[in-house]
Amino acid sequence: MWIYEKKLQHPVRIEKCDLRMAKYLYTQYGGPDGELSAAIRYLNQRYTIPTKEAKALLTDIGTEELAHVEMIATMIYQLTEGASVEELEAAGLGSNYAIRERALFPADANGVPWTAAYIQAHADPVADLHEDMAAEQKARTVYENLLDLTDDPGMKDALRFLREREVVHFQRFGEALRIVQEYKESKKIF
Amino acid sequence: MWIYEKKLQHPVRIEKCDLRMAKYLYTQYGGPDGELSAAIRYLNQRYTIPTKEAKALLTDIGTEELAHVEMIATMIYQLTEGASVEELEAAGLGSNYAIRERALFPADANGVPWTAAYIQAHADPVADLHEDMAAEQKARTVYENLLDLTDDPGMKDALRFLREREVVHFQRFGEALRIVQEYKESKKIF
Amino acid sequence: MWIYEKKLQHPVRIEKCDLRMAKYLYTQYGGPDGELSAAIRYLNQRYTIPTKEAKALLTDIGTEELAHVEMIATMIYQLTEGASVEELEAAGLGSNYAIRERALFPADANGVPWTAAYIQAHADPVADLHEDMAAEQKARTVYENLLDLTDDPGMKDALRFLREREVVHFQRFGEALRIVQEYKESKKIF
Amino acid sequence: MWIYEKKLQHPVRIEKCDLRMAKYLYTQYGGPDGELSAAIRYLNQRYTIPTKEAKALLTDIGTEELAHVEMIATMIYQLTEGASVEELEAAGLGSNYAIRERALFPADANGVPWTAAYIQAHADPVADLHEDMAAEQKARTVYENLLDLTDDPGMKDALRFLREREVVHFQRFGEALRIVQEYKESKKIF
Amino acid sequence: MWIYEKKLQHPVRIEKCDLRMAKYLYTQYGGPDGELSAAIRYLNQRYTIPTKEAKALLTDIGTEELAHVEMIATMIYQLTEGASVEELEAAGLGSNYAIRERALFPADANGVPWTAAYIQAHADPVADLHEDMAAEQKARTVYENLLDLTDDPGMKDALRFLREREVVHFQRFGEALRIVQEYKESKKIF
Amino acid sequence: MWIYEKKLQHPVRIEKCDLRMAKYLYTQYGGPDGELSAAIRYLNQRYTIPTKEAKALLTDIGTEELAHVEMIATMIYQLTEGASVEELEAAGLGSNYAIRERALFPADANGVPWTAAYIQAHADPVADLHEDMAAEQKARTVYENLLDLTDDPGMKDALRFLREREVVHFQRFGEALRIVQEYKESKKIF
Repeated sequence: MWIYEKKLQHPVRIEKCDLRMAKYLYTQYGGPDGELSAAIRYLNQRYTIPTKEAKALLTDIGTEELAHVEMIATMIYQLTEGASVEELEAAGLGSNYAIRERALFPADANGVPWTAAYIQAHADPVADLHEDMAAEQKARTVYENLLDLTDDPGMKDALRFLREREVVHFQRFGEALRIVQEYKESKKIF
Repeated sequence: MWIYEKKLQHPVRIEKCDLRMAKYLYTQYGGPDGELSAAIRYLNQRYTIPTKEAKALLTDIGTEELAHVEMIATMIYQLTEGASVEELEAAGLGSNYAIRERALFPADANGVPWTAAYIQAHADPVADLHEDMAAEQKARTVYENLLDLTDDPGMKDALRFLREREVVHFQRFGEALRIVQEYKESKKIF
Repeated sequence: MWIYEKKLQHPVRIEKCDLRMAKYLYTQYGGPDGELSAAIRYLNQRYTIPTKEAKALLTDIGTEELAHVEMIATMIYQLTEGASVEELEAAGLGSNYAIRERALFPADANGVPWTAAYIQAHADPVADLHEDMAAEQKARTVYENLLDLTDDPGMKDALRFLREREVVHFQRFGEALRIVQEYKESKKIF
Repeated sequence: MWIYEKKLQHPVRIEKCDLRMAKYLYTQYGGPDGELSAAIRYLNQRYTIPTKEAKALLTDIGTEELAHVEMIATMIYQLTEGASVEELEAAGLGSNYAIRERALFPADANGVPWTAAYIQAHADPVADLHEDMAAEQKARTVYENLLDLTDDPGMKDALRFLREREVVHFQRFGEALRIVQEYKESKKIF
Repeated sequence: MWIYEKKLQHPVRIEKCDLRMAKYLYTQYGGPDGELSAAIRYLNQRYTIPTKEAKALLTDIGTEELAHVEMIATMIYQLTEGASVEELEAAGLGSNYAIRERALFPADANGVPWTAAYIQAHADPVADLHEDMAAEQKARTVYENLLDLTDDPGMKDALRFLREREVVHFQRFGEALRIVQEYKESKKIF
Repeated sequence: MWIYEKKLQHPVRIEKCDLRMAKYLYTQYGGPDGELSAAIRYLNQRYTIPTKEAKALLTDIGTEELAHVEMIATMIYQLTEGASVEELEAAGLGSNYAIRERALFPADANGVPWTAAYIQAHADPVADLHEDMAAEQKARTVYENLLDLTDDPGMKDALRFLREREVVHFQRFGEALRIVQEYKESKKIF
């Protein structure tokens, strides 16, 4: 189970109200390689991964990804909070306003709802950890796309933090893969 | 952000290995009115709900639903863990075995992947809290269906606990609706 | 079975050709809380609702929602009928033109096709009527969003009529819920 | 708008309680080539079809398909109404029971929810009428599959009636295609 | 099996960098009536079509449609290759850039991912060939929409070539339908 | 463009008519980690991968995966070809028979239609090649699941061949990743 702590993993201070970015950030909220995909992927894979260490790693990173979902949601909310209907329309968010006013929703930047088809689990630790390493590489590149799209210092700071975490997760999944491969070999010996 | 505590919200002790139930429990894992729908629905609605109390309530219940996702996943895992391929096939889980062996997946009991189309948010507290009350009623009835399908005491205990929580959530959302309606009226007055 | 009567439930007279609104109205055609969702939801729930009155109510409102689908479709058609390709593009309807020219389609304002995942049925009258009450609240708020987006008097008149019907349906589902709850209690007594 | 008449287009009298067939009939309720697809396809195509006759035909057949949705739903409901949980499970409907008890739902026989991706509209009468003719041929073959799967006389009677209607619709769409092609040629002349 | 030949079926020489068209062309890449739908539909139907000639025809046309997928992808790639982020945003491709930079993806012009729900197969040659004829008519009309949206000579040349191929395929499926109908009649005789 | 050669990449000789396997093989036809996913993923990624070698590799492997789609389809067809309706029902293929008789369809073993949401592309060669390596690992494990489910020698031979090809592809994508990383470093130097 989880306990909620009322703070963000990393502070979010957006200085320029850039509504375009609210739309684009959706890709990391409910898009294919976004934070929700990451959280559900790792927390779902925990049950059948064979080693205790890998299980703990998936729980840790999965829990951190929930905090990233919260950071992204906070950024989208801050960007759209005080915007007028006309400003939302000008930023390509008019359809979202029609569908659900300023409410958030786990969809991608085009409005396509999140689907579990974006993630996978196989009860095979080598396959699962490759899936996870690929997921982190894909999330990294999405943060780089978002960094290309903004020059707001506060936004850039949060995106760089999140990008950096994906690189760390990638490395940790790589280590887990080595441990799992050693475990598989040791099992064959005894 | 969230902190993981390594225990289940309520202990799960399944006495009879009933593989049919593993298949059926999926409806509360990745089905339309399951625990994942609940968690994502409430945590997503938090940003635009107007009162502090309603925001805290959505965070509390959303966080608890994450713990319910974990309980359901644990039950499915325990039921399938030691089962042979033949037993899985006999329980209608042969297709799932082909697709991803014994790994879990956020899909419904027919194997349809979870989609965010199951949930909604509207930045209108009256609409959102009605959505939430309906969600709790629907989850309650699904637990009643699952209770009809099993006679294992440990399974029944966990399902009754979860069913009871939905009833409590329903009541709390009902109270929040009254508070929101009072808040809306008070805003009109002053 | 149904008999078609060649008139709209409420006349549609749009005075200003506002193509943006054609795009936004799609949310009430094939969007999550639109009229098609309403019609299919209620007509599908009829079979397992226990009382005659509730069955008749679902049939009545479901049939009326079909008429609302027709009104929304007529509005979209009128708005787009004579528009040039350039005007459609300027209103964000260029992609729709590429996919299917000026034809209508049951999708939301972002072009996401309608899915039955938007609706639910549970053969439990308390759950189903809460689903229906929530649906009406959600549809009401969508009409309010659409009213925010236009100032054409004819459009506003049609949208206000449709919004008002949702409020009436909400009340009638509330009454049905009370009747069903009384029926359930009376069954327990005898 | 539509007026509901409280009778089925063709009486349904199922003599043998064959639960397998309840599952299979879902393909004509919420499956790709089922009656819901037909109704929504034709009623949606009406707006942009150029001739009055074709518009009236799409309205007529679309309205009749709504009556077919009702017949299929009635058959599924009658087959499952009194069945025990064990009987539902034996017929492969255990997952549906877990998800929504005996309630109906617009999904296919495998439980995949209906999606508007099954239908199309193009504001090009030649393309639309070919789509419609193909739809009727596909529905015809589905009824033939269902006839292969049952030997209940009442079921066979209803399925044969519905199959026969698809053949009639196919012919009428063929005639409409000829009329539209003549209209297109006449427009080129003058 | 297939052998790749490193050339396009028809040369693609786009003279004007028209980014709007890159977005619109997606409808023929991963849209409902696009080239991917065509290729997968025909190659999937091959197995159960009864005559050798129809099987060969489906293989031929399915293989050609793979080449059309390649042509469309090449056009989208050429149009977007050197474009700046600002230009992509101005053309409505900002969300796509956020999600996957300049990478292609089998989605429609609104960003909705391709789904097999767009196609059908029935092991009934009359139904399947009507599906195929309808598909070709729908693809033809989409090319006409795209021709309305551009005035670049190189683009128009490629689109006209592809449109013309759909007309030829339509005719060949029409001939196959006649052969299949004759085959069905001859089978009844002997 | 592609040229069709009328032979399978590897011969398919199934000795035991095992209809269960026809159902399970669907996961490698239209399932998340099946051959269609592989073919479309690689052929779609070709355009934005930076080196000539990687482009050629994606074309080669993508083309080979098309041949694997054909092998899997041939196996499913051979298994179901002569089966009676009763046999299909007993193997859990009754719903498929209702929907489309013995026709094949790109869906998974539970009947969920293929969606492009299963694949990804990012115009970042490191992310794309990790996605591809993960895809091959996932496909490998699915073949191992299928090998667990059968003891027919002909089936096992084909599945082992296909499993082996995934291992080879994994290695080749690993080499491509190294080349791309060297290319990226060389670009930074000069």
